[in-house]
Amino acid sequence: MSPMVYGVGSTVFGRQPRRTAPELAWEAALAALADAGVAEVDAAFVGAAFAPAGIAQRALEPLGLGGIPMMTVTNACASGSTALYEAYSAVKHGRYERVLAIGVDHVSRRFSGGIHPERADADGATGLAFPGIYAMAATRYLGLGLATAEQLAAVSVKNHRNAIGNPIAQYGMDCTVDKVLASRMIADPLTLLQCCPISDGAAAAVIGPHRGRSSDVPVRGMALRSGGRWDYTCSDVWSFDQVAQTAAQAFDAAGVGPADVDVFEVHDAFTISEVITVEALGLAEVGEGATLAPKGVTAIDGQYPVNPSGGLLSRGHPIGATGLAQLAEIVWQLRGTAARQVDGARLGVMETMGGGVAGIDGDACVVGVLG
Amino acid sequence: MSPMVYGVGSTVFGRQPRRTAPELAWEAALAALADAGVAEVDAAFVGAAFAPAGIAQRALEPLGLGGIPMMTVTNACASGSTALYEAYSAVKHGRYERVLAIGVDHVSRRFSGGIHPERADADGATGLAFPGIYAMAATRYLGLGLATAEQLAAVSVKNHRNAIGNPIAQYGMDCTVDKVLASRMIADPLTLLQCCPISDGAAAAVIGPHRGRSSDVPVRGMALRSGGRWDYTCSDVWSFDQVAQTAAQAFDAAGVGPADVDVFEVHDAFTISEVITVEALGLAEVGEGATLAPKGVTAIDGQYPVNPSGGLLSRGHPIGATGLAQLAEIVWQLRGTAARQVDGARLGVMETMGGGVAGIDGDACVVGVLG
Repeated sequence: MSPMVYGVGSTVFGRQPRRTAPELAWEAALAALADAGVAEVDAAFVGAAFAPAGIAQRALEPLGLGGIPMMTVTNACASGSTALYEAYSAVKHGRYERVLAIGVDHVSRRFSGGIHPERADADGATGLAFPGIYAMAATRYLGLGLATAEQLAAVSVKNHRNAIGNPIAQYGMDCTVDKVLASRMIADPLTLLQCCPISDGAAAAVIGPHRGRSSDVPVRGMALRSGGRWDYTCSDVWSFDQVAQTAAQAFDAAGVGPADVDVFEVHDAFTISEVITVEALGLAEVGEGATLAPKGVTAIDGQYPVNPSGGLLSRGHPIGATGLAQLAEIVWQLRGTAARQVDGARLGVMETMGGGVAGIDGDACVVGVLG
Repeated sequence: MSPMVYGVGSTVFGRQPRRTAPELAWEAALAALADAGVAEVDAAFVGAAFAPAGIAQRALEPLGLGGIPMMTVTNACASGSTALYEAYSAVKHGRYERVLAIGVDHVSRRFSGGIHPERADADGATGLAFPGIYAMAATRYLGLGLATAEQLAAVSVKNHRNAIGNPIAQYGMDCTVDKVLASRMIADPLTLLQCCPISDGAAAAVIGPHRGRSSDVPVRGMALRSGGRWDYTCSDVWSFDQVAQTAAQAFDAAGVGPADVDVFEVHDAFTISEVITVEALGLAEVGEGATLAPKGVTAIDGQYPVNPSGGLLSRGHPIGATGLAQLAEIVWQLRGTAARQVDGARLGVMETMGGGVAGIDGDACVVGVLG
């Protein structure tokens, strides 16, 4: 039987200079345990890209969770999803009964002194931080005539509007294509409102075997694939082969296809990311992903609602927290309690991408099918 | 049936300024795969405390290992042992067939600009880096009259001598109690030769199910416990409750006791650590651990050989690599091919401690019983 999500929890996302990563992780874990109706777990995996040493133990000791296996797992932007995948796999294979997965990062503290690329890191030394990397993908995509700047901006408009009313979102706002394009240029052609913000936050989930509670949400299939950098191995510079392959594995495990899915949370770190990802997930032909947002296909009431939470662009992107925030949104959608509810959502997909384009970080993708 | 260690590998340990963490990890992985006679694995866990983002993918892509689950796991000094524990657990529960575990850190690069304790970290701000923390434990231990300075120094003499002839060891040397006590004071009463060095290196192992090859070494039992800081929860300030509890769990799983074991590799980050750890493992009564090294009980030809490799003090301590180097030594001992061989070793124990004393890092302990 499918492992179940017993409960989820999340802090608000945003700049939180007075709080620490362990405190954020503790808050999210407390909320998830309460939502799950569970006081004890058999193990805990904490996903974090930048969190301080011992983050798992520092967050969990105040909950009285001692003497169990705890560890921090790291996979760039997919760190939280990797923690979730470990929890899911542990329950699926009978390793543990109840497992806590937490995702957390206090990004604003990490970056408060500026970003220092790893020494001896050619990507970092040449300025290929993520905005630059995705700007190259966007430039190529636009240059091939597959999208217009306005079509990319439409993703930002949709996701910022979706975040209005989402109590954990960092930047819900009613904006327009013109406003998105007029915002400050970060890495041509990506303007400020096309890039995810610096965010601090945490989200968490409790996973366990079937127990017959109606609020529990089954994980129908989940996959993690890693390795193989975009610049070396992909047939097209703008495609996400890793996402496509991971999604195929997760859909196969779940016995469904993308057309069966009612709601998606995907890794829109930049507007171009959502465009490429909806192609990789099979919601559009390759080269046609940019047409979805302008046509309303990915709107909350569209054929394929994508990022009803606001996504990384608008809910925010506290790196390690993102995968578990995506999971929380899908759980809320499937329970019918989301801030911006997709009517009658019964099957949901979450997708997180860690690193991947040109290899500043290693490449890891997680896709989960729930419902 | 017990999961088996198919093969192990290690780089040399020491300051290696011209090499990078991914390169070290790659070298260790290549050696472990060759030793195992395996070209492909189903998943890879990379344990690292300080390694750069994407270390798992950067190390493994040159081996052609793409499209599998890979992740970095972090648990302070027990990071490598945690990767090993994940690999062991995955095989034990039938999650994967063959799993690669790597431990790596390039500590000298990380610390080349000085050690910067986490901001808002009370322990760091008060100077409680690990030498200070263990010095407090040693001071208390000496102050209670449980050991003399000479007895502590005897641990250093033993382990430095053991490392002579170990091809991967950083500091094998024939030294004396007087020389140990006369070396530069680091944190009173711990002198330089009583503290593990700054080391760069990597070690790795391939784990899989029984396949009938005589060089494979069974993992009879393994446990990971976490949480519960020494200063809050232990009955005595110098005892390692976490180690004792983890060892009890591992021995129980293996169906043996400490008296059955022929060789031990334990976490002697400082001389006092080995003293406290041999008590926690049951090789001496609590308060009598310091008598073992001077009496030769823990010598290679003693009743309980401890750290025949030279241990962290002398083989070196590239943080994340240590647990897998301990495993490699035990495997070599049980195969009868160790540099300083314990005659007729048939059962071995490895023990790694991450963080733990007063909580600069979270507390995690791994104990494995092999043979």
